[in-house]
Amino acid sequence: MGKDIEVAEHGRDYQDPPPVDFFDADELGSWSFYRALIAEFVATLLFLYITVLTVIGYKAQTDPDTNPDQCGGVGILGIAWAFGGMIFVLVYCTAGISGGHINPAVTFGLFLARKVSLVRAVMYMVAQCLGAICGVGLVKSFQKSYYIRYGGGANELAEGYNKGTGLGAEIIGTFVLVYTVFSATDPKRNARDSHVPVLAPLPIGFAVFMVHLATIPITGTGINPARSFGAAVIYGKEKAWDDQWIFWVGPFIGAAIAAFYHQYILRAAAVKALGSFRSNA
Amino acid sequence: MGKDIEVAEHGRDYQDPPPVDFFDADELGSWSFYRALIAEFVATLLFLYITVLTVIGYKAQTDPDTNPDQCGGVGILGIAWAFGGMIFVLVYCTAGISGGHINPAVTFGLFLARKVSLVRAVMYMVAQCLGAICGVGLVKSFQKSYYIRYGGGANELAEGYNKGTGLGAEIIGTFVLVYTVFSATDPKRNARDSHVPVLAPLPIGFAVFMVHLATIPITGTGINPARSFGAAVIYGKEKAWDDQWIFWVGPFIGAAIAAFYHQYILRAAAVKALGSFRSNA
Amino acid sequence: MGKDIEVAEHGRDYQDPPPVDFFDADELGSWSFYRALIAEFVATLLFLYITVLTVIGYKAQTDPDTNPDQCGGVGILGIAWAFGGMIFVLVYCTAGISGGHINPAVTFGLFLARKVSLVRAVMYMVAQCLGAICGVGLVKSFQKSYYIRYGGGANELAEGYNKGTGLGAEIIGTFVLVYTVFSATDPKRNARDSHVPVLAPLPIGFAVFMVHLATIPITGTGINPARSFGAAVIYGKEKAWDDQWIFWVGPFIGAAIAAFYHQYILRAAAVKALGSFRSNA
Amino acid sequence: MGKDIEVAEHGRDYQDPPPVDFFDADELGSWSFYRALIAEFVATLLFLYITVLTVIGYKAQTDPDTNPDQCGGVGILGIAWAFGGMIFVLVYCTAGISGGHINPAVTFGLFLARKVSLVRAVMYMVAQCLGAICGVGLVKSFQKSYYIRYGGGANELAEGYNKGTGLGAEIIGTFVLVYTVFSATDPKRNARDSHVPVLAPLPIGFAVFMVHLATIPITGTGINPARSFGAAVIYGKEKAWDDQWIFWVGPFIGAAIAAFYHQYILRAAAVKALGSFRSNA
Repeated sequence: MGKDIEVAEHGRDYQDPPPVDFFDADELGSWSFYRALIAEFVATLLFLYITVLTVIGYKAQTDPDTNPDQCGGVGILGIAWAFGGMIFVLVYCTAGISGGHINPAVTFGLFLARKVSLVRAVMYMVAQCLGAICGVGLVKSFQKSYYIRYGGGANELAEGYNKGTGLGAEIIGTFVLVYTVFSATDPKRNARDSHVPVLAPLPIGFAVFMVHLATIPITGTGINPARSFGAAVIYGKEKAWDDQWIFWVGPFIGAAIAAFYHQYILRAAAVKALGSFRSNA
Repeated sequence: MGKDIEVAEHGRDYQDPPPVDFFDADELGSWSFYRALIAEFVATLLFLYITVLTVIGYKAQTDPDTNPDQCGGVGILGIAWAFGGMIFVLVYCTAGISGGHINPAVTFGLFLARKVSLVRAVMYMVAQCLGAICGVGLVKSFQKSYYIRYGGGANELAEGYNKGTGLGAEIIGTFVLVYTVFSATDPKRNARDSHVPVLAPLPIGFAVFMVHLATIPITGTGINPARSFGAAVIYGKEKAWDDQWIFWVGPFIGAAIAAFYHQYILRAAAVKALGSFRSNA
Repeated sequence: MGKDIEVAEHGRDYQDPPPVDFFDADELGSWSFYRALIAEFVATLLFLYITVLTVIGYKAQTDPDTNPDQCGGVGILGIAWAFGGMIFVLVYCTAGISGGHINPAVTFGLFLARKVSLVRAVMYMVAQCLGAICGVGLVKSFQKSYYIRYGGGANELAEGYNKGTGLGAEIIGTFVLVYTVFSATDPKRNARDSHVPVLAPLPIGFAVFMVHLATIPITGTGINPARSFGAAVIYGKEKAWDDQWIFWVGPFIGAAIAAFYHQYILRAAAVKALGSFRSNA
Repeated sequence: MGKDIEVAEHGRDYQDPPPVDFFDADELGSWSFYRALIAEFVATLLFLYITVLTVIGYKAQTDPDTNPDQCGGVGILGIAWAFGGMIFVLVYCTAGISGGHINPAVTFGLFLARKVSLVRAVMYMVAQCLGAICGVGLVKSFQKSYYIRYGGGANELAEGYNKGTGLGAEIIGTFVLVYTVFSATDPKRNARDSHVPVLAPLPIGFAVFMVHLATIPITGTGINPARSFGAAVIYGKEKAWDDQWIFWVGPFIGAAIAAFYHQYILRAAAVKALGSFRSNA
């Protein structure tokens, strides 16, 4: 094990940025901080607008009461593409401005890994939730009667599944997403594997696509508290609020496990800290 | 905020090209200008040919009168892929020749940001509209009776939606596309994020794919005035012409908002201009 | 126009490889030539095996006589993905060995542009046709009764379309593919647009995907004479042979137009040749 | 042929890593070895969790007894995407940690090519199988009654196909995958074709996607013994165990052929070894 540490200490070809402070007063005085908040707000708004519009359109198309051609819609496959594809596009567009979180669970995971400050994390989450509310609000104003009739794009536990299953699905789903985000932004791997930084937004989008394919039948797939919260606020039915905690607790636990897995297992932070201590001794 | 300006003024690792002149007489004398017009014409022709052929084929396949197997078609998902995938392929092919606009709204947005001259913008739009007409004309000559029976690929407001909703859907949809185009071609971000220039045509294509998933049920999705115009010219029915203004006004407003958002919010042009003024004082 | 030529002559940052000889005897003595033939043979075999198996499987799944669940199949969208996705994978795998043609029309286009010798072009086409026959043969041996019942994956003009339409669809479809191939492998653009060589196999695969979405209802989509020939040989029904000429003449015309468009319009070979003449005078 | 060897011997711009030892005792003492095992375990767990959940969800959605809307599911196309997309995401995430095998057949192929030691190969396979069992176990605990009713995601030969066909389908399918893996990781090609290392995980994922499109109707598509084994252990029905050998023998034969094809035909190891002998003489 010593050999590994040696390499890591002396011969490494990358540089870990130092952990971010919890509070960074300077941040609040820079225009780039507010620009990042605006970018997160706009991106989450567009994310919810496109995806919930796709969900409502799909349900209107496949309603046997109004449409005899039930195969005419985009299908659940199309819904999964809408969520995954929008994350790909929006992470691509905002990565250089705000880091491209568009999801409080991603922000939470990066905060735990000390990659964003507490102030930034909280403000990002507020911007994301406001953006999500506005995005779903736009869909409601566009779709009117359809919006309520077809469930408002809200995340709810499907019939036949208990809360534990829903929570588990959200935890593992968010783990897949946040693990991919950590893999894509790891400075160690960026230096060594030339494909990592170039493709980054694509596997992140695909991770979202994959989780939707698997868990839409169970929870409608949250893995993004802002998405679940925005839909619940605009939809406003009791069931969406009753299950709401699942879509905050699950994603935050999943993100925390992903942060732990990446920092302490894959990056072996603990071992390195020990090695660093020894070589100073 | 001062710190940001300092970095931007003195330490930046990229170079903004100077704004393009409104009229550039030299342009008209260069072969590369006419080559770009030909490339835009051919690309828009191919875009409409493939996409409208897919739409007509889909509708013929799912017509319950002629085809009992309604699931046999490519689905609305396949139509959305046709539009998004063709934009990916054609932006990839023409980016180095004409910039790969293939859409008057994109040209308009880049003109507002002073990235193309007025002459070039107008000529591109003419080439795009002519290409679109020829592309849809080819589909009509190939599909004959099917072409008229299945709506000619024209953009029309779906039943049950008012003009305001249609206009709003076109504005936001075009915003998503043109915002992605600006993000993909920003010289500031190209210098810093290695994935930006490499992937560029892919998120642009995906943006088109996403918007189609969401708004095909509302307007058939224009977000490209040449596409709507070409289909209306060849299809020629009254309804397509009545709604035509939506597919010019909406995309142009959306492109203008995207240009403003990118230049004045994300690139902070206003603040920088001010900072530059101050340091000269 | 003079300015353009000047830049092209004196300041260019790329180098065109010299045109290939028609006959290159040395080629026949090198192991890498035979390795390339083997790679083309294997790639075309795998291409036909996967795609025709998908087509037969799809038709078995959607046959209302045997399967009441008609939506259970992969759909025409899945078939289009099979063709496009396999081209992406195989171009990626063989680009460094044989150039990744996997299609006599691509080979013909590159031969016209003097990028491969006549000997290599002819031998590639033979290898591709043999590979296609073996690939379809494998499918027939795996699917037995299904293979003949569901049309053997052969390209035939669909009912209701005349031969001119079928030929036109093949010409334009192959133009889209070969134009993309030329764009992806142009040394001029490789030097300037960093995204061109990196993504290359992806837009080529997408071009195939797109053309299938649009023209499967018309001809089943050939745009690859080896694919049409291999299926006809194994299927052996009269109709497949009667229409066979369409799937050779169409793709070869489309490839020739693409070669002409790229070499004489986009690369302006004619103008440059003239300019070079003048500056020598 | 001599010219080729000369170039290969003297002027080459890449370096083959030396073949790995069969037993490497040092490996067992390094933390990075155990980290790689953990990464393979977690990746295979996530792979089976997402994909089998998608399969069960699809079957529940399309069951005519419980769901009159048979088009509501993700379709076989969605299942194929789940398998291919997860491999893309997971190869991307684990390539820098463990090499991103996630499949005993891939490990076996790389072992035959002397790219991983015997110890590492065996331990990887154990980790992959344990991960697969845990992943399918999670699905069973989430889906309860659905899990058994809808076949447990187990690989079985479909009715009407004999064992030879199933074995052939597994051999060729795994050949496609492992051939793509070898192409993507070949140091010779990495040095010359700039697109090879950048895209690497994408064509590998697409290869899996393609093979699923083609062979889901025949065997449900294994091409990954850990996937077949994990599902059989948790599902536990006789049929899944009776056919199990097909999903080990087929993939291992396919991987061996791919290793042979890549090392002895495409890389011409035999010829080079001979040339090297001659130049020493």
